[in-house]
Amino acid sequence: MRALRFDRTLQLSNHEPEPALASGEALIRLRLAGICHTDLEITRGYMGFQGILGHEFVGELVHDAGHWRAGQRVVGEINIACGNCAYCGAGISSQCPNRVTMGIDRYPGAFADLIRLPLVNLHPVPDSVPDRSAVFTEPLAAAFQVLALHPIQPSDRVIVVGAGKLGLLIAQVLRLIGCDLAVVVRQDRPLKLLQKWGIATLDARHSAEWSAEGRRSASVVVDCTGSAEGFALSLDLVRPRGAIILKSTYVGLPQADLTRVVVDEIKIVGSRCGPFPAALRAMAGGLVDLEPMIDQVYALDEALIAFEHAAQRGVLKILLKG
Amino acid sequence: MRALRFDRTLQLSNHEPEPALASGEALIRLRLAGICHTDLEITRGYMGFQGILGHEFVGELVHDAGHWRAGQRVVGEINIACGNCAYCGAGISSQCPNRVTMGIDRYPGAFADLIRLPLVNLHPVPDSVPDRSAVFTEPLAAAFQVLALHPIQPSDRVIVVGAGKLGLLIAQVLRLIGCDLAVVVRQDRPLKLLQKWGIATLDARHSAEWSAEGRRSASVVVDCTGSAEGFALSLDLVRPRGAIILKSTYVGLPQADLTRVVVDEIKIVGSRCGPFPAALRAMAGGLVDLEPMIDQVYALDEALIAFEHAAQRGVLKILLKG
Repeated sequence: MRALRFDRTLQLSNHEPEPALASGEALIRLRLAGICHTDLEITRGYMGFQGILGHEFVGELVHDAGHWRAGQRVVGEINIACGNCAYCGAGISSQCPNRVTMGIDRYPGAFADLIRLPLVNLHPVPDSVPDRSAVFTEPLAAAFQVLALHPIQPSDRVIVVGAGKLGLLIAQVLRLIGCDLAVVVRQDRPLKLLQKWGIATLDARHSAEWSAEGRRSASVVVDCTGSAEGFALSLDLVRPRGAIILKSTYVGLPQADLTRVVVDEIKIVGSRCGPFPAALRAMAGGLVDLEPMIDQVYALDEALIAFEHAAQRGVLKILLKG
Repeated sequence: MRALRFDRTLQLSNHEPEPALASGEALIRLRLAGICHTDLEITRGYMGFQGILGHEFVGELVHDAGHWRAGQRVVGEINIACGNCAYCGAGISSQCPNRVTMGIDRYPGAFADLIRLPLVNLHPVPDSVPDRSAVFTEPLAAAFQVLALHPIQPSDRVIVVGAGKLGLLIAQVLRLIGCDLAVVVRQDRPLKLLQKWGIATLDARHSAEWSAEGRRSASVVVDCTGSAEGFALSLDLVRPRGAIILKSTYVGLPQADLTRVVVDEIKIVGSRCGPFPAALRAMAGGLVDLEPMIDQVYALDEALIAFEHAAQRGVLKILLKG
């Protein structure tokens, strides 16, 4: 089968062996996969991963398995957990210390004709959700995780810093809960998307003009930048006793003004993988607008070109077709 | 009157004018004051403060005022708030954006024969609480604030990093709630105090010997070090989905592994001034052991010597007598 591997270099393999299933695993034929910022980071050395890349996908079951039927469209949670530890027992399998992670950490990924994943990781895709939406389930679930670890009230003033792929999904989720929302943008394309969605923006190219609406006004800031500058801006925007939710991994060890965190009694909340069912419900309900976030769909054979496209500044979602 | 001033240098003034009271303020005669780490930091430039230092004190009212009677022993909250903003309205006067802070930020401090403070800031000291305990009210309240901003359960595994003055007070407070508690120590004196109180210790001088009891085991870590190294150790000790409570201001901008915060969904919670009534109840109830934390009492005339003593490594509380 075809697969996109990263083994110090990115390479398309046309003769990859088909996955050998472990007990409890399903075989899934790829329909559509998404290239994520994490995939790009892995090709720069993040996590030291080697193997088949990819963790955002929608596919269909190859065989009947348990109560599942062949042909069923599915999406899959990416953490393969032990099922026996205290975290798994508490329903927090995404934090299982014994986990491996699809396409990120010691488990083959989704950029391949055939994919394996435990049945317990799978969720059926409602008929009303097309593949081009379903492929966003994993990052949209991560966006919903913003709500899971810190309560956000409809009365909150919330600022999202960073309007890339994840920032735009988070903005769409936060828009649903009625809060006073603004997104910090640096480029015209996300600016126009946010305007289309009726979401206020703060243009970082004109930050000198920001007034009281900006600095130290937000009860919650969501930092989607993964940069020391983004974190510093987030600290500048959050009010005393407010919260900063961190959604992106950071390059290196950013310097952080922890004194401000103490003096103003700020909370910083790390947030990662989220609830797939919430993402699927939001898509089935037509509550999010994903189509304009898709830049281009490439065949799996063109995966190397697709990766180059995905790495360009300002590009949003690049998809791979199985 | 006598007062210890910091105006680029630390100096004892014997001819300081008596405080001119603003409306709603009380005049207080100093009985006993404590030298805090923040006072030492201010003499190194922190906050750019100039004026009379000091914010930990117990005194007595000079005049009748409102329902208060002359001679009443009092302690005082250190944030002088506006009373009109959203924070004051929400009962969070310690975060009032219009506040000044006694001996720290644009308001004269307690290292003087006579002190002024708004009546609303004062709390009466129960007769059962001696001056040598009451002088700890402000830092003990700050220790109780650890419980205020992040729920700590009796079932939690809690590690306090840093066994200085504040760390030892926090350890004594946490000991009261039944959690599985340990304190990271580097010196023999706090080690022995903690052993006396029945609190487990992790000796940082032998960290290579720490086993699973140490790394990534704590559901809550309290960092009282104010150092980048202390924060890094705290991150090393906290478990996924755990919390780090920051209690000390930091020198400069420490580097922080925010990626670990994201991936392991850790919460970081800044915490500063706390509830005086809780501290006074704990002292009145005999629940904390403060006497062995006092190293020496100096007359106000000897304040410069007292400051040198307080700055020595391993010294705990130095007091000034009015």
